[in-house]
Amino acid sequence: MANTAKNIIKNHSYFADCSQGFVEKQSQDAVFLKKEKGNVLFVQDEPAERYYLLLKGWVKLYRETRDGEQAILDIVTQNQLFGDASILDNRNHAYTAELIEDAELLSFPIEALDAEVKQNHKFSMFLLGEMAKRHKYQNKEIEHRSLQTAPQRIGCFLLRLTDPNGKVLRNINLPYDKTLIAAQLGMKPETFSRALKKLKEETGIGVQGSNIEIHNPEKLASFACSACSSEFPCSDV
Amino acid sequence: MANTAKNIIKNHSYFADCSQGFVEKQSQDAVFLKKEKGNVLFVQDEPAERYYLLLKGWVKLYRETRDGEQAILDIVTQNQLFGDASILDNRNHAYTAELIEDAELLSFPIEALDAEVKQNHKFSMFLLGEMAKRHKYQNKEIEHRSLQTAPQRIGCFLLRLTDPNGKVLRNINLPYDKTLIAAQLGMKPETFSRALKKLKEETGIGVQGSNIEIHNPEKLASFACSACSSEFPCSDV
Repeated sequence: MANTAKNIIKNHSYFADCSQGFVEKQSQDAVFLKKEKGNVLFVQDEPAERYYLLLKGWVKLYRETRDGEQAILDIVTQNQLFGDASILDNRNHAYTAELIEDAELLSFPIEALDAEVKQNHKFSMFLLGEMAKRHKYQNKEIEHRSLQTAPQRIGCFLLRLTDPNGKVLRNINLPYDKTLIAAQLGMKPETFSRALKKLKEETGIGVQGSNIEIHNPEKLASFACSACSSEFPCSDV
Repeated sequence: MANTAKNIIKNHSYFADCSQGFVEKQSQDAVFLKKEKGNVLFVQDEPAERYYLLLKGWVKLYRETRDGEQAILDIVTQNQLFGDASILDNRNHAYTAELIEDAELLSFPIEALDAEVKQNHKFSMFLLGEMAKRHKYQNKEIEHRSLQTAPQRIGCFLLRLTDPNGKVLRNINLPYDKTLIAAQLGMKPETFSRALKKLKEETGIGVQGSNIEIHNPEKLASFACSACSSEFPCSDV
């Protein structure tokens, strides 16, 4: 296990600027987890003990309001880390993390990460860059929620499901439940259905259940991105 | 001028962890600006030369979409810095900065800030904390736009206009134009007017032009904060 974890850590860009001692220690302290959909890894506002690297599956990060609604902050995908920013927030988790598919993860002690960033300037500079990227992504979310219509937001979501080379996918199987995509985009499920229909009329995409065909990416981009401040394809978010 | 700038820098928490050499140099290179409402300091996606400390007035940070709409990311108030995060984004400004009132500012060369953070670990840790706070604030914005109604969002805005001790103000003069507050809260001016009327009916606030009386802060908080994931008073944003 420690060897597998070490390989994963050594090859992950997040840890590239970390000291060798840290990488060794994290490898030993890593815990491999295989958990089922619906499992909650940690809860908002609770003290953080571990942070996570998602190997397989999807994880929903959200906050719950006092009257019980969920605000989705992000959906984590393969190879991403989460829970790490708690080192910058009095070691409390700013959100709840719940698996939306069966998942495989590595977890690491947060204390060691905290110590590493305090000692290692190069790593602190890397984390600053990461935080800046996340901040920019959230700014874009706020912009979209202010100015894009619901059909445009769905169009934008589809355009961002690129292949590993950043190319628009022509044939998409929605990665998770439509209700969840709706919540992620800040709309009610019924709004999502109406908006998807409208998007189909406006841009000629094919919709069959959770399968989407994009026949004309330029037309879709011209429709969705006219209410966005970035050029298509958007490398900046 | 250099002396005034030096005093301001020396007493500002942002620079507390900076080296003495940096503070001296920034004081010498600081430029004092007195500019009129409507002035644009810098434009989104352009290379950053300077960053700014607002001494007096209000500054709107926004991005403009391809079809000419503005998405407001933040309204900067007295004593806040802006434009500094460009050091984490290839030295490009992520937004446009425009004065919404006559203002007084100090501007500083961004190059020196960039060099300081690369050399000074303590300062890089401070900036990490700052970025984390800004990120948290943006997460809260996304949450509010997902789940709060328009009247709740206005109620939240009013509750956050606290006095220096963090106490809710009983008598508020709206700090800037209603159209701008509407845009900041991600709603159309006509939605804002309707929502303010509804907020008045629901919580008994007094509204006369741009003057607002909060007779019962608990009632206002109970109304606005029920759709929020933070407790009132919200120290975390």
